[in-house]
Order: sequence, then C-alpha cells, then structure tokens
Amino acid sequence: MQIKEILTLTPAEQEVTVKGWVRTKRGQAAVTFIAINDGSTINNIQAVVDSDNNQINEETLRSITTGACVAVTGKLIASQGSGQAVEVKAEKIEVYGTADETFPMQPKRHSMEFLREKAHLRFRTNTFGAIFRIRHNLAFAINKYFNDKGFFYLHTPIITASDAEGAGEMFHVTTFDIKNPPKTETGEIDYKEDFFGRETSLTVSGQLEGELGALALSKIYTFGPTFRAENSNTTRHLAEFWMIEPEVAFYELEDNMALAEDFVQYVIKYALENCADDLAFLEKRLLDEEKNKPQNERSEMALLEKLRFVVDNQFERLTYTEAIEILLKSKPHKEKKFQYPVEWGIDLQSEHERYLVEKHFKKPVILTNYPREIKAFYMKQDADGKTVRAMDVLFPGIGEIIGGSQREDDYEKLLTRVKEVGIDPENIWWYLETRKFGSAPHSGFGLGFERLVLFVTGMTNIRDVIPFPRTPKSAEF
Amino acid sequence: MQIKEILTLTPAEQEVTVKGWVRTKRGQAAVTFIAINDGSTINNIQAVVDSDNNQINEETLRSITTGACVAVTGKLIASQGSGQAVEVKAEKIEVYGTADETFPMQPKRHSMEFLREKAHLRFRTNTFGAIFRIRHNLAFAINKYFNDKGFFYLHTPIITASDAEGAGEMFHVTTFDIKNPPKTETGEIDYKEDFFGRETSLTVSGQLEGELGALALSKIYTFGPTFRAENSNTTRHLAEFWMIEPEVAFYELEDNMALAEDFVQYVIKYALENCADDLAFLEKRLLDEEKNKPQNERSEMALLEKLRFVVDNQFERLTYTEAIEILLKSKPHKEKKFQYPVEWGIDLQSEHERYLVEKHFKKPVILTNYPREIKAFYMKQDADGKTVRAMDVLFPGIGEIIGGSQREDDYEKLLTRVKEVGIDPENIWWYLETRKFGSAPHSGFGLGFERLVLFVTGMTNIRDVIPFPRTPKSAEF
Repeated sequence: MQIKEILTLTPAEQEVTVKGWVRTKRGQAAVTFIAINDGSTINNIQAVVDSDNNQINEETLRSITTGACVAVTGKLIASQGSGQAVEVKAEKIEVYGTADETFPMQPKRHSMEFLREKAHLRFRTNTFGAIFRIRHNLAFAINKYFNDKGFFYLHTPIITASDAEGAGEMFHVTTFDIKNPPKTETGEIDYKEDFFGRETSLTVSGQLEGELGALALSKIYTFGPTFRAENSNTTRHLAEFWMIEPEVAFYELEDNMALAEDFVQYVIKYALENCADDLAFLEKRLLDEEKNKPQNERSEMALLEKLRFVVDNQFERLTYTEAIEILLKSKPHKEKKFQYPVEWGIDLQSEHERYLVEKHFKKPVILTNYPREIKAFYMKQDADGKTVRAMDVLFPGIGEIIGGSQREDDYEKLLTRVKEVGIDPENIWWYLETRKFGSAPHSGFGLGFERLVLFVTGMTNIRDVIPFPRTPKSAEF
Repeated sequence: MQIKEILTLTPAEQEVTVKGWVRTKRGQAAVTFIAINDGSTINNIQAVVDSDNNQINEETLRSITTGACVAVTGKLIASQGSGQAVEVKAEKIEVYGTADETFPMQPKRHSMEFLREKAHLRFRTNTFGAIFRIRHNLAFAINKYFNDKGFFYLHTPIITASDAEGAGEMFHVTTFDIKNPPKTETGEIDYKEDFFGRETSLTVSGQLEGELGALALSKIYTFGPTFRAENSNTTRHLAEFWMIEPEVAFYELEDNMALAEDFVQYVIKYALENCADDLAFLEKRLLDEEKNKPQNERSEMALLEKLRFVVDNQFERLTYTEAIEILLKSKPHKEKKFQYPVEWGIDLQSEHERYLVEKHFKKPVILTNYPREIKAFYMKQDADGKTVRAMDVLFPGIGEIIGGSQREDDYEKLLTRVKEVGIDPENIWWYLETRKFGSAPHSGFGLGFERLVLFVTGMTNIRDVIPFPRTPKSAEF
C-alpha cells in the first residue's frame, strides 16, 4: 500500500508496511521520529521508534539517514503530534539502501541551478515531486478530454524530411560517419546513401501530418515531442519539448476557439481537483519566494487565484485589429511605457498581450485575424487579402499559450502561398493533395505542454517542469 | 453530430446534417444512394436523394463522386435497405471538396504496398480507419490503466548522450553542417562545438531515466518514441516506434510478472469492449485474405479467438531452464524440425517461443531467469551467478511481446557488470548514483506499442499499424 492511501486510513492498530525514502530523522532520548515519503503524495508519513524496541537495533537506526530507503512495519495509530492524522509505531525496519552524508538532497534550501545539475535526484524533493505529479495529471487530463470527445490520438512522425514551419532551426538526423560522409562526384554530401535515402531532421510540429489524419478520421490530436535547434538560453525555451495539436475537420475558426477554451479550462480544472495538495504546496512556495522581492516584481495573483481566473472567466474574443486599437489608446502606449512600439502589422509582444489580459479585459483573451505576413503559410486567408483566420489564446503572466487557425482548404490559394514563402511544393505534395481530393474546412491549434505545466505549477524556468531538459550545451542524463 | 452518434438515433424525421467523405454513389433513375463516412466509425451512413428534389441540382449530384467531401442535410428516417437502421433523406447538399477520377482510394482492392505509398490518404479506407481507431483506443487504455493504478507518466528524453542498451545502431543528432564540421587540432570532430556540446543520438529506450523517476515517485511509466538505426527491411522492424516502459520501486520479479499480465490483459479487454465493430471488420478481412492461402499458412486462431486466448487464460510461468528442458524433449526438436538448434544458453527464437505457447501450454507464457550473457547489464543477478531476473512474455503468433526484469540494485555488482560490458561508468554516473543513495529493489518492463497494435489488429506488416512508418530508405510524409 502506498503512503497516499495509508494516510487516508482510520487508525485501528492494524499492521501496515511503509516503503519509501527517509526525508528527515529526529532523535530524542526515548524515541526517534522518521519522516518517510514514497512519491505517491507530497505528504510524509511519520514512523515512531521507541528506544525500548528490541527488534530494531541501534546500528540499524544509525544507518537510517536522509535519503536512505526503508521498509517500516508496524501498527497504524492516531498521531500524537500536529502533522498528519496517523503515524506508524515501528516494530520492524528493513533498510534497502543507505545514503551517506554526500547525498545531495539534504533537508535544506537548494538553488534551482543546483537541483538541475542533480536532475536524477531532484524528483525526491517536495517541489519536484509536486511538479511531476501535476505534469502527469495534466497529461492524463489531456488524453481523457480528447478521448471523451471522440478524438483519435495520432502519432505523427518524429524524423521528417519536411519542415512544417518553412524555416530552418532543425536538428539533422543521420547515420553517416560525420568525419567522413559519402559525397557525390560534385563534392556534395550524398544523402541518397544516408539511412533514409534523403536529408532528414527532427520534427518541429506534427500539424501537417495531423491534418492528413483529420481529413479522414475527422477529429485527431497529437501529443508528442517536438524540437527546435534555436540557440536560445532563456527561461522559456527548450530544444526538446512536448506539444499537443488537435485538428478537426468541419471546424471553422469559431469552433476552434470554443474547443481551445473548453479544452484548456478542462485540464486546469482537472489539476485543481486532482492535485490540491501539490498546488497548495507550490502556492505557498511561491509566496515565500516572493516575500523577498520588491512589490512590483511579485505576481499579481497567487497561484490558485490565477488558475481560477482562467477556469472561471469566459475568454474575451476580439480581432488583432481591434486589439491594436485598444493598445494605441492605452495609458502605457501614450506614456511610452511599452518597450516595443505598437502599430498595425507588428507581432504582439508579451507586454502587449499581458496588458490586454491583466489590465484591460481582466480575463483570458483570444485574438483572431492576424496580419497574414506574420503568420504561417497554411492559415486560411480572409476575404480582405490582408489577414488570416489565426487565433492566439492569451493568459495572465505568460501571454500566448495556444496558437492556432482555420487552415487554408483552397488548393490554388494554398499552392500560391506555399510558393510565395519559398517552400518547394514537391516537398509537401501529400499535404497539397488533401486539398485536391475531398478538401474540407478544418481547424486546429497547438499547445506547448511545458508552457502549460509552467503556468499551472507557477514555476518560472521551463527547465524545471520537464524531467531532463535539453538546452544549448546541455544534454545530461 | 458525428456519424457514429447519428447511427444510434431513433429515426423520427428529425433534421440532421451529415458531414463526411463519399465512399460510393449508386444511381438509379429515380433515386441516388450516397454512402458517407466521417472516420468516427467504420460504418457509413446512407444519404438518399430523390430525383424530384428541387434543392439539389444535377450538376451538384454529378460532382459527388468517391472521395468528395460533402455536408448532407435532411430527415433521419428508418432505412429501407438491409444495411443500417437509419438513413438520411437528403434535402440539401453542400460539396466542400470534389475528387476527380485520379483520387487513388477508389472502391476496389488495393495492395498494401500501394496504400503505404499513399499513407496520406489511406486513413480514408475501412482497413486503415479501423487500425487507427484501435491504435487510439489501445493508447488510451494504456494511459488509463497506469493512471488508475497510481503510476505517473514520465517524459524521458528523446535526444540523449547515453546508450541504454550499451550497443550501437543509434541515429546521430547534430546541428553541424555535415559538409564542414568543426574539427579539433588533431583532426577529430569537435563535438564541444555541437549544439549540446557533446555527441548526441536518438534514444533507444527511456528505461534508465525511468528508473530515476521510479526511485523517487515509486511508480512511473514512459510512453514515447524510440529509435533503432538497424538496416532491417522486414515486416517486424521500424526505425521509429513507440514504447511503453513502466518501472516500479519495491517490485520484485514476481510483482513485475503480475503487473505485465494484468496490464496487457486490461488493454486488450479494453479494445474488445470499445472496438467491437472495427475488430469484427478486421477479423473478416483476415479470414477472406487467408482463404487463398494453403491450410498450413493460415492462422491457428481467428482474430477475436486469439485476443480472448490472451484475456481468458492465466499466463504460465516457468524459468528459461525449464523451457529449454521442455524444448529438448519436444517432437520438433527430436525430429529436427526447429530451424535453430536448442541448447541451454541460446537466445530463444520465435519458433521456440511459439511452440511453448501454441503447442505445449496452449496459453500465454512468461519465461524468467535467462542466462545473464544474453541479457542487458542492468538486470539483477541471481545467486547462481549464471542467470538474471529477466522475464519475457510470449504470445501466440508473435512470440515475445514484453521484455523486462528486476533491476540490479547493488552498486558494486552493477558497476562491475557495467565495466564488463564495456560501458564507461562516467557516461552513466547518474544511473549508478541511484544505487548509492537510497537504493531499492525495483523492476520494470518494455512493450513495443506497434507490436501490440499488430497483435490486436491481426495485421502482418508493422508498417501498416503506424501512421507514417520510418524504415531504411523511406521517410516520406
């Protein structure tokens, strides 16, 4: 039985065995208290060892230090102390594995940088236990939401010969001996000799292949790893991250917005209902951390308040053009407080998005109909020839969390745009063909999973919400 | 409303709109029948167009051919024909996208090779619709099983600097210009200059990182893509495939076997209950296909019988050594019918595994305690010094479907073995450290997802159960 379950039992001196890792040991003359955690919950269970217990010798007790792994058998009794409702009166202890004083996760404050270097052990801290339990629950909520709504999970390829975004920054995948790759007579790399017989990379998005599925199965979603070889050493970028990309036939932009709102509210509500202990811990952690910061650097809302803000408010919908008008009339614009100047045609910055969400509307916002020049080639063109049927969902504190669009379903318009942005139509012949054979209106969006986990956990560095982050010059573990 | 749902309604002349792709159109003088499918189910809905309908002109009707995408609005009535219970009396038809006679998925028999070349459109056939709906349901059942049992889904890294199996066959990942990579003074490739500052590859397994999670959160599972750069052009190998790898702290080999049996029975039962129509279709397809084969090449069991064989039988457990004894006494061994000779120490071949399952025990089999020389370095060594606490789950028709073990949790034994097999301990220092700090008995196993989908769908080529297969010289789409 795991600790999560044992903690819910009514104490009646029944025998239980607790298996887990020692968080702390406090000794007194007559009695020793051992706090044990098994990762099933953020809460420890306390084992109490009386010094007159003959089954547990002093040597065993000495070997039980922070980080050791133990199995404690004893009676479950009502707790005498103030912490949990129950504790274990230890009768027998088996030590599976000791941990000497070099164990890095000692019970004291560690810097996040230090914990990242010890990513193999940081799961054993309260903070990272909480984060990865929440991450699991969000992933499960995503799969459950789509399954319940009749979507099919589609595994789109990781290794690809196409570039969905039409722009570089991809990792090469090869089996060549890089020191000595085969070359053609003209001295070029002879990719015909490579494993796949052509140049291949790691995918940046499963969307194009997802559309192929949607134009047959109607409702699909992807949930898989994607990659960017961007040399960005920031708190917001990973070279390897997980994306969720639903794609739905017969959905127009309005349906797409309704899906995005319902979906993201569902998964956050799921976390609120299923991760209450972990969220309460992270909220307190964040408040403690911000105590030392000046007022203007603290979060506007506490963690749970921010999550309820998203779940309880209907998202405001407006066009990009309307948003620009609001920004042009805004105080920070007039007082030149925005770092990036506002005018129609710009790619909105986080400061603009947050102004709209946090100051102007005080609710999550969906912006639509962006200028086509700043959006991808596959978005459906509006009749005005200037905008496309794009949508971005904007959240407090973070700005854009979801980006999507209705897709261009007119073969000729799509082909023209593909050529305009410099993609070789031959390279995506299969994508273009779906507009030739039974084309249909369809829409979809993408959500970066780590962005969502970052938002829900209130963490500030994206490297702390994925088990083993991949960033420039870092691929440890 | 999707067709799956409409087909369950009681017909009462209520207005419905059906959106989907035309499978067939049959015309008569007075009436036209259009079979429409939207991928939500294998079943089509029939739209009936009376020739005296003024809303639907002849031109529209002419443009509706196999592959076209349409929205048909009309009254839902009891079906006159023999197929479904209901049909739509069309009042209005909107054609979203036509499909001319070059549409490749015409209603006739296509070879599997042809459909693989048209993987962007094969979703629109009955067979591939069924396969990918079943694939979705299996994936969901896996996530649901583990979630319900308190496991946490762990995303282990795709790009890695370590090699879990200790043996080559990996894809390189690099941002170097392969034509001109930076070199050190001694002429070696200067991987310090590469994106991650070291040589990196695509993962072959998430197990080692999974163990790190289990030794903190107790119960985890991975479900993600893995890669093998093996130049194997067979019906059983993919260069990119999805793996499920649960890992559990405090589980010994016996617990691991119980988990594997319960898990695989659960997911197959889930498919039987949730994919009845699709499985019935695939069973019939297989029977039709095998009609043309000689008796000895046909399957021993029909598809549903084979699935129930796994769900209804308790798995037989025995050691590798016991299995070798049975094989040595077997008729095919004595009559020299096995292609590969049997003796203690061999890696069992599919023919041996299938003999045990299909002929000897007539139930699924779990073999344990294999010779350590044929198994991976991380498996826990038995006291005899000859075998390890490995387990393979063997299925009818396919042989090994799951491979796993209890893991070596003794630091010194593990370190010795790591060195013996030629892995640099420095390269997996983090893995070794978990045996130094709070080591615990733990176990896990791996299931190749496509192997499972192959088994459940009864397909014979693994390229047909993943949307876009990656194999030597092939990375299209």
